[in-house]
Amino acid sequence: MSRTVYVNGEYVPEEEAKVSVFDRGFLFADGVYEVTSVLDGKLIDFDGHAKRLERSLNELDMDMPMGRDALLDIHRELVRRNGIGDGLIYLQVTRGAADRDFAYPEGATPTVVLFTQAKPGLADAPLAKEGMKIISIPDLRWGRRDIKTVQLLYPSMGKMAAKAAGAHDAWMVEDDHVTEGTSNNAYIVKDGTIVTRHLGNEILHGITRAAVLRFAREAQMQVEERAFTLEEAKQADEAFVTSASTFVMPVVSIDGVAVGEGVPGPVATRLRDIYLEESRKAAI
Amino acid sequence: MSRTVYVNGEYVPEEEAKVSVFDRGFLFADGVYEVTSVLDGKLIDFDGHAKRLERSLNELDMDMPMGRDALLDIHRELVRRNGIGDGLIYLQVTRGAADRDFAYPEGATPTVVLFTQAKPGLADAPLAKEGMKIISIPDLRWGRRDIKTVQLLYPSMGKMAAKAAGAHDAWMVEDDHVTEGTSNNAYIVKDGTIVTRHLGNEILHGITRAAVLRFAREAQMQVEERAFTLEEAKQADEAFVTSASTFVMPVVSIDGVAVGEGVPGPVATRLRDIYLEESRKAAI
Repeated sequence: MSRTVYVNGEYVPEEEAKVSVFDRGFLFADGVYEVTSVLDGKLIDFDGHAKRLERSLNELDMDMPMGRDALLDIHRELVRRNGIGDGLIYLQVTRGAADRDFAYPEGATPTVVLFTQAKPGLADAPLAKEGMKIISIPDLRWGRRDIKTVQLLYPSMGKMAAKAAGAHDAWMVEDDHVTEGTSNNAYIVKDGTIVTRHLGNEILHGITRAAVLRFAREAQMQVEERAFTLEEAKQADEAFVTSASTFVMPVVSIDGVAVGEGVPGPVATRLRDIYLEESRKAAI
Repeated sequence: MSRTVYVNGEYVPEEEAKVSVFDRGFLFADGVYEVTSVLDGKLIDFDGHAKRLERSLNELDMDMPMGRDALLDIHRELVRRNGIGDGLIYLQVTRGAADRDFAYPEGATPTVVLFTQAKPGLADAPLAKEGMKIISIPDLRWGRRDIKTVQLLYPSMGKMAAKAAGAHDAWMVEDDHVTEGTSNNAYIVKDGTIVTRHLGNEILHGITRAAVLRFAREAQMQVEERAFTLEEAKQADEAFVTSASTFVMPVVSIDGVAVGEGVPGPVATRLRDIYLEESRKAAI
């Protein structure tokens, strides 16, 4: 069965979901995106994603293409039409189509695309019990990783490098310090303290990151927001990542070195449980 | 009149020139491009562009979607169908459409798009007599600028910053040294010696750059391929840029500081004349 995809105001079969070759998303990677999880047919952290979308657009001198409620309606309509129980909703906004020129076009209409990905059992991924193996790679991305643009080629290359090494993902390292994973924020736990990089232009301001840190603090866990080195990570008691699509996912080895006992740790496991429980409660 | 655009084996009116929203060029900027100039209906440096395309694709583990002769046929057919005398041919190859995943898809068919831009009098641009004003901006691009990917958002932002400052373009600076312009290679001339950054991952390996340096050496001019600082550039006798679409274009001011006499210099002017003359002779 073909998915129904939203493209610029219309719901169309995925085979007909197309954009102009002159779209600046295609020609210049001049667009931003969000991915929102769906559990039991409800949206996780929708408002966080909507707010970050607005921030990304603002950083690129673009306006929100529609209000929060209209966006929510499209998300819900896609969930309904595609019968999504557990899955993801992908949203992309670009500056629109115009004849090719590095300068932004005047008066182009933004392109808005949303589609779903069904992921039955998303919250029960076996990997959460097994833990992820990661490798480290240099962080060669551009300098504004806080803007969630579609310039994702290097993270893609990193994912392929991880696969080639028999690992699940890669952590990116800049000036000896870990920035983040290819599509997730990175954490370590040492002597009971959770350490994750502070916000800045160097990393994405993860929606799941914000929620997990809030839950951790509410549960009286110690949290330090600062850069940590790859060496620190290898000697940590635990490591994990967070993202909208993986929630909290334990990391059990880095560059072939076991982290702690080499199995998912208690902090990551507990945070995953709390995150899923609280997020399900707040889902809309 | 609508342009005719080439999309995956078909020649279609530009309104119908579309790609899937699942195209990795749109979702991941997972694609590369080339721009070839057309003068008097003939292609400038076609083989240089075809070779660089192959190199870019190889760096991303992609194959050439077709041979050199088939590519040439499409270029010529687009020139013919669109009645291009002077102009540009834009070519983009992406990894193709597949459900969204950071990992490269297995067996996706590459997307191939080509379109024309008519630019009557391209070789007689008034700016060549006037000279470009440029500003400097930090170089925030990713670390593999030698691969000609469509991750062009930062160069676009740079172009807008230049416009906002009343300038024509921006030079990007990393560790005090100029890398290149937003869509061109950067040069200075001091005491008769032409200085331009050496090849590496930091800059695009310009096709026009290679030709201009060859012509300069054949004309017994001194050439040094090395990084130069922004300060050196401001104190140079001349400055200029090269690209497929601007050929050799003089720079007359940098961050509001006049370069040399503040008018197009003799070296840039001579190189432009030589480049245009030789390129027209070799055009196919």
